[in-house]
Amino acid sequence: MSYGHVLHLSLFGESHGPAIGCVLDAPPPGFTLDLEALRRHMARRAPGQAGPWSTTRKEADAFEILSGFYQGKTTGTPLAAVIRNTNTRSQDYANLARLPRPGHADLTGRIRYKGANDPNGGGHFSGRITAPLTFAGGIALQLLAAHGIDIHARIVEIGGIADPSAPSPLSGLPDLSGKPFPVIDDEAGQRMIAAIEEARRTLNSRGGIIEVCATGLPAGIGSPFFDRVESRLGEMFFSLNAVRGVEFGDGFAAARARGSENNDPPVPAPDGALEHVGRISNHAGGVEGGITTGLPLIARLAFKPTPSISSEQTSVDLETNQSAPLVVRGRHDPCIVVRAVPVVESAMAFALLDLLLEHGWLLPESF
Amino acid sequence: MSYGHVLHLSLFGESHGPAIGCVLDAPPPGFTLDLEALRRHMARRAPGQAGPWSTTRKEADAFEILSGFYQGKTTGTPLAAVIRNTNTRSQDYANLARLPRPGHADLTGRIRYKGANDPNGGGHFSGRITAPLTFAGGIALQLLAAHGIDIHARIVEIGGIADPSAPSPLSGLPDLSGKPFPVIDDEAGQRMIAAIEEARRTLNSRGGIIEVCATGLPAGIGSPFFDRVESRLGEMFFSLNAVRGVEFGDGFAAARARGSENNDPPVPAPDGALEHVGRISNHAGGVEGGITTGLPLIARLAFKPTPSISSEQTSVDLETNQSAPLVVRGRHDPCIVVRAVPVVESAMAFALLDLLLEHGWLLPESF
Amino acid sequence: MSYGHVLHLSLFGESHGPAIGCVLDAPPPGFTLDLEALRRHMARRAPGQAGPWSTTRKEADAFEILSGFYQGKTTGTPLAAVIRNTNTRSQDYANLARLPRPGHADLTGRIRYKGANDPNGGGHFSGRITAPLTFAGGIALQLLAAHGIDIHARIVEIGGIADPSAPSPLSGLPDLSGKPFPVIDDEAGQRMIAAIEEARRTLNSRGGIIEVCATGLPAGIGSPFFDRVESRLGEMFFSLNAVRGVEFGDGFAAARARGSENNDPPVPAPDGALEHVGRISNHAGGVEGGITTGLPLIARLAFKPTPSISSEQTSVDLETNQSAPLVVRGRHDPCIVVRAVPVVESAMAFALLDLLLEHGWLLPESF
Amino acid sequence: MSYGHVLHLSLFGESHGPAIGCVLDAPPPGFTLDLEALRRHMARRAPGQAGPWSTTRKEADAFEILSGFYQGKTTGTPLAAVIRNTNTRSQDYANLARLPRPGHADLTGRIRYKGANDPNGGGHFSGRITAPLTFAGGIALQLLAAHGIDIHARIVEIGGIADPSAPSPLSGLPDLSGKPFPVIDDEAGQRMIAAIEEARRTLNSRGGIIEVCATGLPAGIGSPFFDRVESRLGEMFFSLNAVRGVEFGDGFAAARARGSENNDPPVPAPDGALEHVGRISNHAGGVEGGITTGLPLIARLAFKPTPSISSEQTSVDLETNQSAPLVVRGRHDPCIVVRAVPVVESAMAFALLDLLLEHGWLLPESF
Repeated sequence: MSYGHVLHLSLFGESHGPAIGCVLDAPPPGFTLDLEALRRHMARRAPGQAGPWSTTRKEADAFEILSGFYQGKTTGTPLAAVIRNTNTRSQDYANLARLPRPGHADLTGRIRYKGANDPNGGGHFSGRITAPLTFAGGIALQLLAAHGIDIHARIVEIGGIADPSAPSPLSGLPDLSGKPFPVIDDEAGQRMIAAIEEARRTLNSRGGIIEVCATGLPAGIGSPFFDRVESRLGEMFFSLNAVRGVEFGDGFAAARARGSENNDPPVPAPDGALEHVGRISNHAGGVEGGITTGLPLIARLAFKPTPSISSEQTSVDLETNQSAPLVVRGRHDPCIVVRAVPVVESAMAFALLDLLLEHGWLLPESF
Repeated sequence: MSYGHVLHLSLFGESHGPAIGCVLDAPPPGFTLDLEALRRHMARRAPGQAGPWSTTRKEADAFEILSGFYQGKTTGTPLAAVIRNTNTRSQDYANLARLPRPGHADLTGRIRYKGANDPNGGGHFSGRITAPLTFAGGIALQLLAAHGIDIHARIVEIGGIADPSAPSPLSGLPDLSGKPFPVIDDEAGQRMIAAIEEARRTLNSRGGIIEVCATGLPAGIGSPFFDRVESRLGEMFFSLNAVRGVEFGDGFAAARARGSENNDPPVPAPDGALEHVGRISNHAGGVEGGITTGLPLIARLAFKPTPSISSEQTSVDLETNQSAPLVVRGRHDPCIVVRAVPVVESAMAFALLDLLLEHGWLLPESF
Repeated sequence: MSYGHVLHLSLFGESHGPAIGCVLDAPPPGFTLDLEALRRHMARRAPGQAGPWSTTRKEADAFEILSGFYQGKTTGTPLAAVIRNTNTRSQDYANLARLPRPGHADLTGRIRYKGANDPNGGGHFSGRITAPLTFAGGIALQLLAAHGIDIHARIVEIGGIADPSAPSPLSGLPDLSGKPFPVIDDEAGQRMIAAIEEARRTLNSRGGIIEVCATGLPAGIGSPFFDRVESRLGEMFFSLNAVRGVEFGDGFAAARARGSENNDPPVPAPDGALEHVGRISNHAGGVEGGITTGLPLIARLAFKPTPSISSEQTSVDLETNQSAPLVVRGRHDPCIVVRAVPVVESAMAFALLDLLLEHGWLLPESF
Repeated sequence: MSYGHVLHLSLFGESHGPAIGCVLDAPPPGFTLDLEALRRHMARRAPGQAGPWSTTRKEADAFEILSGFYQGKTTGTPLAAVIRNTNTRSQDYANLARLPRPGHADLTGRIRYKGANDPNGGGHFSGRITAPLTFAGGIALQLLAAHGIDIHARIVEIGGIADPSAPSPLSGLPDLSGKPFPVIDDEAGQRMIAAIEEARRTLNSRGGIIEVCATGLPAGIGSPFFDRVESRLGEMFFSLNAVRGVEFGDGFAAARARGSENNDPPVPAPDGALEHVGRISNHAGGVEGGITTGLPLIARLAFKPTPSISSEQTSVDLETNQSAPLVVRGRHDPCIVVRAVPVVESAMAFALLDLLLEHGWLLPESF
């Protein structure tokens, strides 16, 4: 239940427990953290945002760093942080012990943990656990950016409405972190927001697709088979709640192309260096044979619609084993895709930092 | 570069080296292996098949078990096997040291390994390394089948031509291992074969999509976050050469559905047991909150078209850093999707067996 | 920097930071924790005890469980706990940045972490980090005891003064946890205490040897090579501050015996069951071929004398690279062996619980 | 059952099976292996040596490298090697299925593996499995030596007869690999040989102590707690058959010293560099706080006497559960300590190389 080969991440906590948090073991020593930037990064994920997409549960998601941080810098020893839960309404979940929500972990979690896990607010299955992941990834983002590696994500599609824009094969995605609704094409964004509003009004929910892109990666990172870049990122991305699909480069569309269309022919390096040989196109999304090419690394993640919807559904009363109607209470996002954008950036950053550290690329000496 | 939490898999070998092989550390003791069935399973992947999709390189892929196997049974100690390479033509690769093939690991691998890796036949990057994976997964398939868990895969789509059939929400996919071209709808299959023949004729290649399904899994397997079923399978599936996308259940289509459409409402258990509570539908593909529901576990994998095509392409001469034409020699599949079907079954089997063993479900006592 | 194959332990914190703590990922679900017993267990390690062996720093070592614990039971999801640091005097460490203490990690840690680690109170190198290890091991002790496995440790020797008592080959060590100074022979204990008092008086320190014993273990736990019982326990025991040697059974004395003297001939099982076949003697200390025999598992750990002594020593002024006198301030134990006894029990318990869980022995079903 | 954090070692094979071997995943690319030196290194461990200490089983222990080695150099991809078993006499082990040998894994292994493991020659528990470990460690020794790190071991004691020589605090141990009986004091060596001869004559066996020392290590390698140098080496050393105790520096003797005696006061660096600050003495054996000091890293390992002795012993007939006399047949070493010397060097080399690679110290760039 932890992630990473040389940079380990442990996540803990339940949605309605005393606190959630993480241990990073361990970022390189001597790196100056910008705590204010970290708070801004986490605010992009925090609940209670102004848009129609967000739950009304308000949590400041204020973190306290307990260790591994001294005089403004990472120490190189395990960095632990906690985020207190402050706004819980467990009574909303009173009926879920008997009536599991469709599409949720209420039932599978109960089987998995022999009924001993905390069901309130989804417990450890809650999307709230992505807050410490966003914290950890926020640190990774700062470390990577200090070395010229930038990661940006955007909403590609919500409720079947697509932003027609495409990432640049060579320069990737722009930084949209300043936008409350991070799309490239704002007109498409408006139609997505309308779809979310319609879902909220009809007590329903919507899913969507996020695209994420890393630029500035060196060529030559990754290994054959189980440590391919896609393998390591796939493990991470599929850990995120509600993700049902992951693709790299042209992804599923590549399955429909011819080899002559899908290959990215090399072009000479500007400086003659082997590792700077380029490509005409980037159908591969920055990775060939599981190893980075140096071009933008591009992935897309499909998020299902929030399973917690307020319209009446059918469940099974687990005490009687009879079908029974269910109306989900609690405060839920009609579309989690918007708040998931910084989570996806964080997830990618953490996975890439781990890979880079494993390659000895970001040595302590670098700082 | 190994896989597994309690059942470890190490793969080794180069396409044109003395041998390829694997170490499984370790299957439960006392399980009787059906070596003949294992050979038949591996023959489905082996090169030199009759169809137009296959390379003309002929390899029997005969395995020798070196350890962990005694008196017809697994011993519980590491099981090692080797497959000798017998039909290599390294001269076909003489020019690739200077002229990397587009879409291949020729260039990225050379950067990764400082030019020290064996380039012949793709070396350790070769799809040939899936032979020992198929061996290991073939053992896992036998172990799972002995406990009522069956895994079958099929070709869903090649070259944009789709088999319109869908898996049953409750009983999954039929066993197509007896078909040389494993589709449900043979008429669609004929059109796919024609597309492959056209690709071969035009010195081009084709990709496609494979669907894989496990039935008989108990509910309650998996864990939140990094050990979600999708995370563990995603890590494995993205290790396979040429895979560009992975999705579970409705996958990317789920991103376009409403919550009310995508949720799978529970239905009472036939026997009243919590772990046998069913679902009306299976949009989730057998996993909720990262944990199995007991319904068929369904995934789809997108394979890109083979990058090694025989029509002229553009590359860069690495000695001069100038663009240069490239004609790929060597023997290559115009479409690897057909031979990849048993590889995907094997990959899923190994990953699921590891998960089940980690849960203590398949104890040595079971045998 | 984490431990465990299926039960993972992450430790974090610095001696003078806001808090220390741990994440256990994860104990089996549904186990009722006796928090009062856990507090008593931790009090045996806590600083500020009445005896002459203890530092005068007083810390209640009160833990707060943040997750993984619900309605008095483990949930099966990660269990995190923090212990706030309350009594720190960092000014005592002001000179150590320039003048590293002999025998301490002041200098090696500074090199390791490029000077970025927190030096106060030893930072993450402090023996104080054994508090969360004792917490985690205390949970393991309760889980094991609920299944008939008991672990007890004792002081064998301090300052060269040995307790002449030996553990019983068949029933191991008595429970001495009620004794402030846990020796079998109290007369020898008095002489050890006198040696510690002399060390304190002369501004010096003393080391010693702890013996630890687990009874009730099933036969057949462990695996050849890197998962031998001794390998897994050795990794754990050598993690404890100040441990310089570890031995199992007759240990170094076995190197002087003949085969005929050191072998433990089997004796028939009382009930005829293979796994209950006994041994005449227990020179092996409960493990043959890396695998438990079912007899008491016995290890001994050698602790060096506390390096922080108050008499004047020689160091090097790191700013001038000149030899310089050093007088260590701060509050230090003249002998850490006494407080280390529950730490050693905890360490063994955690390592054995991890091994047992890996073998599927303590399944969730057991609870 | 594998070892290593970034450099993984898998061992496989049974004493009387087709072959034993290993996979190293993976040494840095581009390193030229001296195969002749590797064969000489392995010959020091191979059975059938001229001395009275060795079994009469003759095995050339010829290795075949199957992968990861190209044009005389490591490729950076997994390096696999096999050693065929050629001289097996399984009939010697016919009675052991019923009559387990005292002190051996015959009984514990049978319980562990439900009777499915190969018992012949000890199967996977055989000391013969140290041959592929010696191969892997031999590669590590060459890699380390190329960077100025040398590892030498010696016999300190056999049958209670000690070599009175001590390693130099600053320069460690001399290279004794050219001596068939690697002691410093040959006169003591003669008495040890006489003790072995006496053991052989009386159908008995002898144990002993090996000291191993690494010089040239940089300061600053290792991490607090579970990745302390002692933890990593302890895990490795306790994996070796027959090891009952491990100590570092003064080890158990340190437990009897005062702090003022055991501390190693720093001395100024010859060149003023922090990482070259020295120590007056080396009681710590080259490691403080779990991290290397740069002084010789010194460990001692206690080996028990070979349990397989030819004089009559008592066992239990497992079919009748009655005591029964046992005379062990087969070919066994009356003292394995001599042949274990290169194994210990190899074990230390592998563990240290893994640690160094994890620190990014030996980067591929170095080659």
